[in-house]
Amino acid sequence: MLSKAQISLITSLHHKKFRKQHGLFVVEGIKSVSEFISSSYQIHCVYATPDARTKMSNLPQNLKCIDITDKEFHKITSLSSPQGVLALVKTPPIEDFDWNNLENTHSIVLDDIQDPGNLGTIIRTAEWFGIKTIVCSNGTVDAFNPKVVQATMGSLARVNIHYTDLNSFIDKSNITTFGAVLSGRSIYQTDFGSSGLIILGNEGNGINETIKSNIDHAVTIPRIGDAESLNVAVATTIFCSELARQKLNQKKR
Amino acid sequence: MLSKAQISLITSLHHKKFRKQHGLFVVEGIKSVSEFISSSYQIHCVYATPDARTKMSNLPQNLKCIDITDKEFHKITSLSSPQGVLALVKTPPIEDFDWNNLENTHSIVLDDIQDPGNLGTIIRTAEWFGIKTIVCSNGTVDAFNPKVVQATMGSLARVNIHYTDLNSFIDKSNITTFGAVLSGRSIYQTDFGSSGLIILGNEGNGINETIKSNIDHAVTIPRIGDAESLNVAVATTIFCSELARQKLNQKKR
Repeated sequence: MLSKAQISLITSLHHKKFRKQHGLFVVEGIKSVSEFISSSYQIHCVYATPDARTKMSNLPQNLKCIDITDKEFHKITSLSSPQGVLALVKTPPIEDFDWNNLENTHSIVLDDIQDPGNLGTIIRTAEWFGIKTIVCSNGTVDAFNPKVVQATMGSLARVNIHYTDLNSFIDKSNITTFGAVLSGRSIYQTDFGSSGLIILGNEGNGINETIKSNIDHAVTIPRIGDAESLNVAVATTIFCSELARQKLNQKKR
Repeated sequence: MLSKAQISLITSLHHKKFRKQHGLFVVEGIKSVSEFISSSYQIHCVYATPDARTKMSNLPQNLKCIDITDKEFHKITSLSSPQGVLALVKTPPIEDFDWNNLENTHSIVLDDIQDPGNLGTIIRTAEWFGIKTIVCSNGTVDAFNPKVVQATMGSLARVNIHYTDLNSFIDKSNITTFGAVLSGRSIYQTDFGSSGLIILGNEGNGINETIKSNIDHAVTIPRIGDAESLNVAVATTIFCSELARQKLNQKKR
């Protein structure tokens, strides 16, 4: 059974204000829900139709699972092809940032990314390439926005996302910074070394001026054709791929 | 003035059936409309608000431009942040495919890509990297779908898109084929040479079995982390970037 109060709670979680107030966010779909269940995130409860429940046989015994009908499910889903399962997941406590996470590895830094689909794709792609930490400016779209969660295809369950004041973060950090800009050294001629922060800027305006003037290496994706710009998730992908290529090449040597 | 018939024509063009019937498609936004005007496409007419018209000062004299009010514009736009200008553009005549287009270069081949945003991003990214031709299976989403047009950010005006029966196309072609698959040679250890077809498959099912068994080189994007898959526009991006890297490196030698 699904009460009116439950419906109103779930739909309220589309808004950042209510996610913050309740300390919860929504995850939908069999794969994504399964990945959050087996992650370090805490599950508040799961709503499932009989059909979805049979497809998710190995649910932990202590998991609160509420059985609802297909008709009820349609009142809470926001997917066009709903899969009959939705979890309310607890937003993780905001802990002091562990600077050790940035050592001997590469991390991504996002300055005011606005589009949920872009952030979701960046998280999914970063995870494919083994990147474990993404640091976002406070102005970046919330990673627990349902559209972001959906676009990560479960990867959000395993990548650390940290929101902070980016200017002072970059100031405090003593890790080498690589910024994606329109005129700099070619990415294919840049040695990314064994650690670094890869900074990508806002869809329209790029990296803000304060950070730009502090960057150690200004890096450009060479333009061969006539397109005026690249999507920011596409640009991040190109950095992740080139990092992976350099890392795999080093191992071979 | 905007008549009811005009509104109904424009909104009908969201559907492939009516785009085919009228031989027209919709382009919106100042940048995109400008790029189509200066391309080889033929413009049927442009609808513009006074504000947008002042921003597009250099319109060709022979262009049919219909002045409409902001209120009228809201009846025809499908953007959440409309810019006051919309063009009806003639779909190009279907010509015999020019096989010369594929020689001494790399082209992209798409097998049943479904998502308009993915196709749009692929066209935009391909143009950035100087790729001039994209061959699509007949089952791939229509490139003149308004969501595709929008996502290309004007690049559609300059990239050749050809729809065909992909199985017989690959059969007839004598260009080296590179297929993106889950287990093959690492993309970073693949020499793409000076020409080739880069084949990317459907979002859920990848490249169809007939084509897969005909591929010259099965190529994989190495997975370093735990994500299960990559978005197809992201995968295409990684191929375009690696092609560009190899091409720029060859020039340097």
